[in-house]
Amino acid sequence: MISKNEIKYIQSLYHKKNRDIENTFIAEGAKIVDEILQQSYHVKKIFATEGWSNADLKQTAFAQIAEHELQKISQLQTPNHVLALVEKKKLPESPDLNNKLTLVLDGIQDPGNLGTIIRIADWFNITQIVAAPDTVDVYNSKVIQSTMASFMRVNVWYKDLPGFLAGCKLPVYGAMLDGENVYSKKIKEGLLVIGNESKGIRTEIQSFIQHKLTIPKIGAAESLNAAVATGIILSHIL
Amino acid sequence: MISKNEIKYIQSLYHKKNRDIENTFIAEGAKIVDEILQQSYHVKKIFATEGWSNADLKQTAFAQIAEHELQKISQLQTPNHVLALVEKKKLPESPDLNNKLTLVLDGIQDPGNLGTIIRIADWFNITQIVAAPDTVDVYNSKVIQSTMASFMRVNVWYKDLPGFLAGCKLPVYGAMLDGENVYSKKIKEGLLVIGNESKGIRTEIQSFIQHKLTIPKIGAAESLNAAVATGIILSHIL
Repeated sequence: MISKNEIKYIQSLYHKKNRDIENTFIAEGAKIVDEILQQSYHVKKIFATEGWSNADLKQTAFAQIAEHELQKISQLQTPNHVLALVEKKKLPESPDLNNKLTLVLDGIQDPGNLGTIIRIADWFNITQIVAAPDTVDVYNSKVIQSTMASFMRVNVWYKDLPGFLAGCKLPVYGAMLDGENVYSKKIKEGLLVIGNESKGIRTEIQSFIQHKLTIPKIGAAESLNAAVATGIILSHIL
Repeated sequence: MISKNEIKYIQSLYHKKNRDIENTFIAEGAKIVDEILQQSYHVKKIFATEGWSNADLKQTAFAQIAEHELQKISQLQTPNHVLALVEKKKLPESPDLNNKLTLVLDGIQDPGNLGTIIRIADWFNITQIVAAPDTVDVYNSKVIQSTMASFMRVNVWYKDLPGFLAGCKLPVYGAMLDGENVYSKKIKEGLLVIGNESKGIRTEIQSFIQHKLTIPKIGAAESLNAAVATGIILSHIL
């Protein structure tokens, strides 16, 4: 059973403002929820249909609900057994940039793109992303879903980028169309800036970029999708 | 002005069955329509709001419509000035596979993924894709939009893959999780099979793959998005 108030509360969490106030996000589907329960997240409540169970549940508040109730609170086209309300992870105020590559996202708008970039980062063992404040919220439920659980291993900070980059002492690389061939570059430490899907890297951010990196084009497409470009660059420089 | 029948007709073209019967697809937005008009497409009719014009229009049937009318026929969140009804391009019955790399898609479901893969192909000058019949339709309007005009330069054939691969004499490569490191491979001619987003390459198709290619993983993500994997592999093997 689920109450009207609970339905209302869950639906309110599909808006960033309410997620911020409540410090809570929604995770859906057996795979993601099972993995969350294994990690050090505080799971506030789980709503699941008959048949779903998990040995890690223990003290977690739990409600068994009907399929039609799950449909009311789910944002998936095909609701998948279980939905969890989870407390956001507490991050240190700033990432530690030393001895690693950190991604910097200058305003990624599309939830699927951010989710895919987080999944790529996780594949290449990049655990830190710093994003401009106008980047889509990492706790947006479409982002969470499209990370395929990788959001648990990659931390995202939202920072005013000019201020952040001004205080950074490491090399700053940027994915741009007129830079050095990325195929011949190896990078162990620094920041890699990826631009917005349609506008690329903003002019004010470009001034912080010391090394422009380019994926050589041999065909006619004007550009590559931001997530695809991120994947290609990381596969070459790491 | 646009008539009720025209609105109904255009909306019918958002279904594959009707696009097939009418041999017609929908293209939207100034950038894509401008480029279509420069190519050898037969544009059946253009609907545009005041202010949009194009020197290549000439004999093309044209209707100026109001913003609220465009909204009725558009599938974009922010309709962009112009919508065109375009005849599908006539392709030879089969692609010529010699002296080039051809992509094979084993059931890509998501329109955005197919569009992104077409855009990647165009970036790397791959002009041919052979897709399993259950791959999303290339003339789906979301695919067309997400190719960013690259669909004009990359041809897609829908084929029964086992029959097609059985008759193919060139090497067949497949993107899989247990193959040879893609970083050390160069390929000039053959077929590269990319699997479905969640299921990968079907077992019956795997039997045709002579060379498995793998993107080495250094982190923890289970897999990469199909389009991202395609981009990474192409950037290394070409």
